[in-house]
Amino acid sequence: MSSTDLNPPELAEAINAKGFMGAAGFRIVTITPGHAEIALARRDDLLQFFGHFHGGVISALADHAAGIAVTSALPKGKIGVTVEIKVNFLSPADGVELIARARTLKMSGSIGVATVEVFSKSESAETLCAFGTATMRAMDLPAGLRPR
Amino acid sequence: MSSTDLNPPELAEAINAKGFMGAAGFRIVTITPGHAEIALARRDDLLQFFGHFHGGVISALADHAAGIAVTSALPKGKIGVTVEIKVNFLSPADGVELIARARTLKMSGSIGVATVEVFSKSESAETLCAFGTATMRAMDLPAGLRPR
Amino acid sequence: MSSTDLNPPELAEAINAKGFMGAAGFRIVTITPGHAEIALARRDDLLQFFGHFHGGVISALADHAAGIAVTSALPKGKIGVTVEIKVNFLSPADGVELIARARTLKMSGSIGVATVEVFSKSESAETLCAFGTATMRAMDLPAGLRPR
Amino acid sequence: MSSTDLNPPELAEAINAKGFMGAAGFRIVTITPGHAEIALARRDDLLQFFGHFHGGVISALADHAAGIAVTSALPKGKIGVTVEIKVNFLSPADGVELIARARTLKMSGSIGVATVEVFSKSESAETLCAFGTATMRAMDLPAGLRPR
Repeated sequence: MSSTDLNPPELAEAINAKGFMGAAGFRIVTITPGHAEIALARRDDLLQFFGHFHGGVISALADHAAGIAVTSALPKGKIGVTVEIKVNFLSPADGVELIARARTLKMSGSIGVATVEVFSKSESAETLCAFGTATMRAMDLPAGLRPR
Repeated sequence: MSSTDLNPPELAEAINAKGFMGAAGFRIVTITPGHAEIALARRDDLLQFFGHFHGGVISALADHAAGIAVTSALPKGKIGVTVEIKVNFLSPADGVELIARARTLKMSGSIGVATVEVFSKSESAETLCAFGTATMRAMDLPAGLRPR
Repeated sequence: MSSTDLNPPELAEAINAKGFMGAAGFRIVTITPGHAEIALARRDDLLQFFGHFHGGVISALADHAAGIAVTSALPKGKIGVTVEIKVNFLSPADGVELIARARTLKMSGSIGVATVEVFSKSESAETLCAFGTATMRAMDLPAGLRPR
Repeated sequence: MSSTDLNPPELAEAINAKGFMGAAGFRIVTITPGHAEIALARRDDLLQFFGHFHGGVISALADHAAGIAVTSALPKGKIGVTVEIKVNFLSPADGVELIARARTLKMSGSIGVATVEVFSKSESAETLCAFGTATMRAMDLPAGLRPR
């Protein structure tokens, strides 16, 4: 399939600007077909009891990066929605920014599987703080939501 | 163990008031040792592209409910932190409120496992919209964070 | 859908008699649409290093029970194949028999999700030793494999 | 920690020879601290209904490889036991041999997390047929089971 038949980056930007993604401040760093890197800066309303990024926020970022990675390799008009996600928390997410890097392992019919590494970035280092796997299902994007 | 040796409900309230939990509006409905029910009202900044609750927000609520369920059955001064969580999304979370109901399946040494059902509540019905399993690890609550 | 349009129990028996299932001794206890109970007696070649049932054998039994539960609620000629499975091991599986009880949480299009409880049965008690969740995908049963 | 303080390869061989591992024919290819590669040749009693390797057998191999990977980086006398495992099935495992390659992502206290890629090997190619993540817990090896 030619890359002009795939979803354009504008779709990811449109998804990213809405609802929770926009409000939390998810920021697309790079997208290539099957891959996505999404960043999220630290903010008090994204933390948990100990002052680290909340596990649910990490899961949300991982979920979103996996969805963008899978969607970016789908034909125009299809979007990946999450069937299930599994995240292991590996070390405290106490940095100033999170970086999620997702890659599609396999598309098989309408099912796609992606892995995501989430790094906690301090001024001097990136530490792997979470690892996830997500199963996505391709569905038709409702006409009203298609980017022009 | 007598229930007076367990974590008091005040700990869950303290956790709930902070960071993402407080900002998103997580609301404790009931807690009994090993069980927790947490609600979350619909708000634009908690939704995804299609206008339903964001999967990441659902995961965060499930994670939090599982943590409170496990923590509520731990001795005073111990808190359950998430080792990993897995969530299946079963139907669109398009209601006016989410309700997460978590129960501890098993505590074994310092490891606890909980399941969580998340319901999307409309004016007339509750629909199971997600199902999760979480593995928790008991750790010592830092002295400065213990409720008095 | 009338129950006469669903897969007959003979399909589960045919699946169960083959390959690993037959060789390990998987035994169907009961099947109703969406539910399955499968047993497996202890045998030296199903154990791990400590002399308990091997985790992989427990996963295999859970996977199989989930597949039968989902398949039993599918129309004739469709079979559930595993997209992914997740199993938590809760206590040593040191009984004389394992019993897996699976139930379908949700069918949504061609995707089904089931939970499975696995019990280790001694002479006097049943102990929950594992809990799993499986995502299944309905596919067409190849003509040569359909029970007549 | 010096490598002479870690578990010796003999422990993995001893584990591998027992019960289900020995009966199924699990074969250690290579072990280095934190990594393991385990092979399994096709045999009729390891297959499912369609004549491919059974998903449960794939899960068992993945579980075992993850356990050996984590155990090989533990101090002498400690063994990794599985808390939970999650496996995605990506393509039919229709080769003549399975190869599981596990690596430890993180050890944190007594908890280790490993990822596993499982390949189906035909005469001409290796195909990624499954991907798993396992959480392990270090426990003391009972005295009677320690290799001399």
